[in-house]
Amino acid sequence: MDTVDFTIQNLGVASIRTPIILSNKVKDYVAGYVSDNDMIINDVTRVPGTNQVYTKKNLLEKAGPRDMIYFDPVKVHAAIVTCGGLCPGLNNVIRSVVMSLWHVYGVRVISGIRNGYRGFLPESNLPVIELNPDVVSDIHKDGGSILGSSRGMGERVTEIVDSLERMNVSILFSIGGDGTQKGSLSISEEISKRGLKISVIGIPKTIDNDLCFIQRSFGFETAVSKAVEAVSCAHTEARCAINGISIVKLMGRESGFIAAHTSIASNDVNFTLIPELPFDLDGPNGLLVHLKNRVLRRKHAVIVVAEGAGQEHLSNDNAGKDASGNTLLGDIGLYLKDRVSKYFKSEKIDANIRYIDPSYIIRSTAADPGDSIYCTRLGTNAVHAAMAGKTNMLVSLINNTFVHVPIQLAVEKRNTIDPEGELWRDVIQATGQPPLMKNV
Amino acid sequence: MDTVDFTIQNLGVASIRTPIILSNKVKDYVAGYVSDNDMIINDVTRVPGTNQVYTKKNLLEKAGPRDMIYFDPVKVHAAIVTCGGLCPGLNNVIRSVVMSLWHVYGVRVISGIRNGYRGFLPESNLPVIELNPDVVSDIHKDGGSILGSSRGMGERVTEIVDSLERMNVSILFSIGGDGTQKGSLSISEEISKRGLKISVIGIPKTIDNDLCFIQRSFGFETAVSKAVEAVSCAHTEARCAINGISIVKLMGRESGFIAAHTSIASNDVNFTLIPELPFDLDGPNGLLVHLKNRVLRRKHAVIVVAEGAGQEHLSNDNAGKDASGNTLLGDIGLYLKDRVSKYFKSEKIDANIRYIDPSYIIRSTAADPGDSIYCTRLGTNAVHAAMAGKTNMLVSLINNTFVHVPIQLAVEKRNTIDPEGELWRDVIQATGQPPLMKNV
Amino acid sequence: MDTVDFTIQNLGVASIRTPIILSNKVKDYVAGYVSDNDMIINDVTRVPGTNQVYTKKNLLEKAGPRDMIYFDPVKVHAAIVTCGGLCPGLNNVIRSVVMSLWHVYGVRVISGIRNGYRGFLPESNLPVIELNPDVVSDIHKDGGSILGSSRGMGERVTEIVDSLERMNVSILFSIGGDGTQKGSLSISEEISKRGLKISVIGIPKTIDNDLCFIQRSFGFETAVSKAVEAVSCAHTEARCAINGISIVKLMGRESGFIAAHTSIASNDVNFTLIPELPFDLDGPNGLLVHLKNRVLRRKHAVIVVAEGAGQEHLSNDNAGKDASGNTLLGDIGLYLKDRVSKYFKSEKIDANIRYIDPSYIIRSTAADPGDSIYCTRLGTNAVHAAMAGKTNMLVSLINNTFVHVPIQLAVEKRNTIDPEGELWRDVIQATGQPPLMKNV
Amino acid sequence: MDTVDFTIQNLGVASIRTPIILSNKVKDYVAGYVSDNDMIINDVTRVPGTNQVYTKKNLLEKAGPRDMIYFDPVKVHAAIVTCGGLCPGLNNVIRSVVMSLWHVYGVRVISGIRNGYRGFLPESNLPVIELNPDVVSDIHKDGGSILGSSRGMGERVTEIVDSLERMNVSILFSIGGDGTQKGSLSISEEISKRGLKISVIGIPKTIDNDLCFIQRSFGFETAVSKAVEAVSCAHTEARCAINGISIVKLMGRESGFIAAHTSIASNDVNFTLIPELPFDLDGPNGLLVHLKNRVLRRKHAVIVVAEGAGQEHLSNDNAGKDASGNTLLGDIGLYLKDRVSKYFKSEKIDANIRYIDPSYIIRSTAADPGDSIYCTRLGTNAVHAAMAGKTNMLVSLINNTFVHVPIQLAVEKRNTIDPEGELWRDVIQATGQPPLMKNV
Repeated sequence: MDTVDFTIQNLGVASIRTPIILSNKVKDYVAGYVSDNDMIINDVTRVPGTNQVYTKKNLLEKAGPRDMIYFDPVKVHAAIVTCGGLCPGLNNVIRSVVMSLWHVYGVRVISGIRNGYRGFLPESNLPVIELNPDVVSDIHKDGGSILGSSRGMGERVTEIVDSLERMNVSILFSIGGDGTQKGSLSISEEISKRGLKISVIGIPKTIDNDLCFIQRSFGFETAVSKAVEAVSCAHTEARCAINGISIVKLMGRESGFIAAHTSIASNDVNFTLIPELPFDLDGPNGLLVHLKNRVLRRKHAVIVVAEGAGQEHLSNDNAGKDASGNTLLGDIGLYLKDRVSKYFKSEKIDANIRYIDPSYIIRSTAADPGDSIYCTRLGTNAVHAAMAGKTNMLVSLINNTFVHVPIQLAVEKRNTIDPEGELWRDVIQATGQPPLMKNV
Repeated sequence: MDTVDFTIQNLGVASIRTPIILSNKVKDYVAGYVSDNDMIINDVTRVPGTNQVYTKKNLLEKAGPRDMIYFDPVKVHAAIVTCGGLCPGLNNVIRSVVMSLWHVYGVRVISGIRNGYRGFLPESNLPVIELNPDVVSDIHKDGGSILGSSRGMGERVTEIVDSLERMNVSILFSIGGDGTQKGSLSISEEISKRGLKISVIGIPKTIDNDLCFIQRSFGFETAVSKAVEAVSCAHTEARCAINGISIVKLMGRESGFIAAHTSIASNDVNFTLIPELPFDLDGPNGLLVHLKNRVLRRKHAVIVVAEGAGQEHLSNDNAGKDASGNTLLGDIGLYLKDRVSKYFKSEKIDANIRYIDPSYIIRSTAADPGDSIYCTRLGTNAVHAAMAGKTNMLVSLINNTFVHVPIQLAVEKRNTIDPEGELWRDVIQATGQPPLMKNV
Repeated sequence: MDTVDFTIQNLGVASIRTPIILSNKVKDYVAGYVSDNDMIINDVTRVPGTNQVYTKKNLLEKAGPRDMIYFDPVKVHAAIVTCGGLCPGLNNVIRSVVMSLWHVYGVRVISGIRNGYRGFLPESNLPVIELNPDVVSDIHKDGGSILGSSRGMGERVTEIVDSLERMNVSILFSIGGDGTQKGSLSISEEISKRGLKISVIGIPKTIDNDLCFIQRSFGFETAVSKAVEAVSCAHTEARCAINGISIVKLMGRESGFIAAHTSIASNDVNFTLIPELPFDLDGPNGLLVHLKNRVLRRKHAVIVVAEGAGQEHLSNDNAGKDASGNTLLGDIGLYLKDRVSKYFKSEKIDANIRYIDPSYIIRSTAADPGDSIYCTRLGTNAVHAAMAGKTNMLVSLINNTFVHVPIQLAVEKRNTIDPEGELWRDVIQATGQPPLMKNV
Repeated sequence: MDTVDFTIQNLGVASIRTPIILSNKVKDYVAGYVSDNDMIINDVTRVPGTNQVYTKKNLLEKAGPRDMIYFDPVKVHAAIVTCGGLCPGLNNVIRSVVMSLWHVYGVRVISGIRNGYRGFLPESNLPVIELNPDVVSDIHKDGGSILGSSRGMGERVTEIVDSLERMNVSILFSIGGDGTQKGSLSISEEISKRGLKISVIGIPKTIDNDLCFIQRSFGFETAVSKAVEAVSCAHTEARCAINGISIVKLMGRESGFIAAHTSIASNDVNFTLIPELPFDLDGPNGLLVHLKNRVLRRKHAVIVVAEGAGQEHLSNDNAGKDASGNTLLGDIGLYLKDRVSKYFKSEKIDANIRYIDPSYIIRSTAADPGDSIYCTRLGTNAVHAAMAGKTNMLVSLINNTFVHVPIQLAVEKRNTIDPEGELWRDVIQATGQPPLMKNV
């Protein structure tokens, strides 16, 4: 059967009646339980010449409360960990997981692990935070994570599972991105190897929106909103100076989604540079000439550059990796600023160049209402999955439906902008930049 | 063939090469043209026991630039009209339509019709506004519509089409909700009857999110954000008074989407009342008793009520219709305030009741960045459809893909919250209210 | 001596050395103590023909830390009460008082009285809230008051002082407006009569800015900011409708400061109506004719009306008083809406009238940074005054200097807009309305 | 006479009746004209032992409309120029000046000079912008200046006055800071030398608040609000990392007002560093040790540093000057980041250091409502002064009264924070930092 890779792993038979009172009767105005047989299609593209979609690896299990659960709520010890860089909505997800465990299922032992996977390591000496509705009640109003975060340590799987065993944790909610979820996968496999009954539920967090099998990552919308504010300031600076050129560096190590969405939203960007699309600086079809022409014509310009763009221009000979295992990037923003500055000097054009890097201000902001709703629902559905005994999976949103996705699938490759797709087409139209700035 | 009802009508054969330079080659970093054969599935639910979805009426034509177009840009006279109540994003859509027509296709004659369909009627004496990039450049920063709006007149089809003929309009973009699009349908039919070659492209606008065949209506996200602010104030007022009870009336005539989303986002709401779910006020399972218990237990309460909720409690004997054809609703907010007030007096509980109606403040606000992106892309895709000679259709977003939808389909019935579905289940969980407040 | 009325009352000789380490040496980069002899001029107007100001009742004692204090911090029991309507900044003031008492002076017993003066009355059964830095640390991010509030009860002086005695309160911080401070005065007098050593320090709170001897009341700036947002929405609504007229009712029972400042800030208001200036509705120089002319000329209009304006048009025969002793006002907003509506019907002009009352949304908002700074400094200076044994006084800001003001002075009369002064002159210029809309 | 230095210069006798209809009658509800004899006291401090203030150089002429004016409105050509760095409120001031000239006095020729004083120089080839109510109507919603700005050129006095003569300018409004106003002074003197009748009215603009004889500079309040947002993000970043240390650099070349106000407003700052107060980094009473102790105790810290602070730590041997004549500063923010980083490494403490520089985002933002009111009133009063024939003066706010100040006075010295004054005392209390971090 071709859907095998999408099958969600279970810790065992769910044989306990859920405390949630719903009804599968219709027309009684009461919601029903979700069954493991409720599935949706992932890829909605029609197979040409048919009225059907592709069927290979295309069915996803719907999320939601099951009528029978695996864990006895009074015996559950749940743990929550937040890893990697900050992202709007972390506190909302924590809050939702705690509220759902406590109020919906009656779980009373919930531990917050401090500062990412590091909090599991004895050497770190980071005591857990006991979580309950009082503790989390107002945390969604603040950015960041009340648990703190840190990068890496996901590879110290043995010690982490030792720690889970020692603490008698029955459910681990790991909130994090690609690196974190690769860690979750290894942890899950180690748990399985040891024959433990610990559910590992990932909640995908990536401000760059670069995880596959998730329609939109939480915090992304808020990040774009804040980025638009920064671009608006950059535009003002550019317009008010003589030949003003503002360069705004936005997050996006391997995917330019924030840069692309910000550019469409703000209507003020003239050049958007993303990791997915190479570009030349010099030559008749290079960025610098196009920039000069724009400045001569309109007296100002705004450039948005994703942090992972144009890495081919930077000498990365000594490039190391950060604690999350990400390749350390050269700073394309400062490099661009320098190159643009030299170029305009060489062209004897008096230009005023401003460089703005709003990254910390973007990522530490509190979730906006759209992300707040999304985080609440992600957290709730993560709890439903965990209590039903699912494991080694992510909770996700696909085609506007909350679903379960095997972690393996989501970390196989990164989600990137298709330079030949609709989003990038609309960016090109919004900025008016050449479709490709490469000399032949 | 079972997809017949989804077929998009064309004015004729598209035989002019588009001025947009794209490429259907792969790996050349240039986006491709979209074909009428590119289709997606609408309903993603799996047919139980199969790996497939339902095939009846389930394929939608993808939106986007076609390689061949119907209209010669230099001969096009486009008209834009905005109808009905204000909604965040109207100016963004207008801006996007004008920018796309002008910069992408080279159209130079674009008329803004003033104050809705009324602007077509000679008696109104409302001159059109000549639109171009200079005029629309900054309008997205403001709420409302630079064209103004008004309700009704969509039934004066003959005169409107007379006016379109007189003005030699080739494309009409009608931005509006259910009533407006019913008007668009009639106009389109009258055009067809007269054998005219005028494309009618609807851009669905409904702050209530109550149109079918659209994943999310523009302005909805912004409206929820503003509603969350109002609820936050209501919550503060309630908490700071002795037995404080705040009642917030939100928009939602036939659908409680704004009320539902706001309740999940704000985490402060205790009772959400929507048109889709009847409720009793009195009796052992009525709202008033539940409210009293909440107030006695927690000393304050917040109620969010959609304007169309609980109409069964209001005597609508003389209920008329407004100019859009909507039934005039009794004011459930004031009614609730009065009933709650009397009830607490009769129970001899000293309660402080505040009533907040933020509707005008919500609907006249400027679009947030998320809606800004969406409006830009809706407008662009509307222009692609129009230039290709499509007509009698709406541009829409389904499963995160921009598509074409026959107007007929979208206005057949209203989109409402399924009280047995996932959204409402999550609202019940967020508020902690009884699933159903009805006495047997 | 003509400054007698400005003399601040002391509980006794301040004979304890303050724990605050400052230095009156100059050029040592350390701030100095403030002395009771440090005074500033209140009224800065020059006496014509001289180089001096008026000297009668014109000197105010500067606020700030004294080198000798009256109370022994380890024996102090401080109480804080917030009374009357909500106002941005209440939590900031509470926070500042607690932080200053705790961290600066080492006071460890601080009680928050619940729901205004009512919290002192045994019948209310409202337990006090124990306050300390942990409790107040984040409260400034929220609107409202963590202590709650209520109107009235200030006249039950005997019981309140009984309660203060029973609790062994040494300092009472009363945060409230005119009615509250009249209560503080009576309480202070009763304390004096009983020979108790309880300091009563008022912190003036009036969102209407209607207290005398205070340059600007806290929360006022924030209130104007939120009011400007509401007016911006009203303007959008008016512009987008055919002959759109928006009426915004703002707070201001006896003083139109919010209405006046909002009108200048927003640049969108055409008519501002305040309690200080009578106006006619009918007749050749009445509001209605001027409004009609404006609408005919510009197609829309925005009216801002303070809640206390135009009371002469409302029949107040049965007007009672609210619990704060304020005369209950007729609703000028609804009255205006009704009169404008009838007038335009009688003139056969199709007008679209919207009525917006954003009061609850304005007053329950959190303090903006400007008010945050101000509240912090008011609270700190209130604590300095209390610890020094001052009583029966308000802490205030005059000519940008924090000062002590006898309560008696501040409650003698209300602060109002001088219709012949500079502020109103600038409003008239901003709105373009006739200086006086009265028929002779 | 000891007020001589405060005397405002006039171009000649004001002999034309103003078109503004006011009335000096009392109780007629109509504002009166202001006379040159209306004066207020500047320094409100009491002379010890008296009931009076100091009289030397202490009287300022009140601003406002005079009954007789010098210029005939129909013959006036007014010019407006904005110089130096961006500051919130520039567009509001421009708008107010244009609206007042046009609507209040009937002036019809108003030129906007492009890009600062540079716009006067023929070589710049920058055409003027013709200003009128239509052009400026909505500009206050945007940050920046529609005229653009640039630094310097104020010393090319002869050419600027040549240009004024050539253009027949009768009034020059120069909006700018210390450098700009020194330019205005020279221009004014050159005009006087040539016997021209050109009024030069300065409108003080300094986001750093470092001009004397002005209670508060416009844009300052907005700047602090934005800075508070950045600090809030810095605080979140610091709290969520292991031993997180955030360093925020704020504007303030010679005065730490933004840093000081932001620190009080945000309640999250632990160390505030300003130009007025030297500090050591090393040693037992140096910043680094205090920072380490804070981090060990509380696990995170936030440092706010004004750009001009700690310059003694940077080697400025080659320090040049920017085009405004300001000494180029070393980057204290990056220096601190580097020193803190090295110190914690040497102490073997694993610290996470973030550096945030939000300057461009702060200065290019639009004015908040408080600044909007202030800018409107500054602009109006500048116009009244100009039309009355005043020259070589600034319009200013002192003791909450709009006044006229000779430019000479305002540029004599910079306004700085008194480290022994009340503001800094309150900062020390808010941050809890040592009063002085200097080793003896």
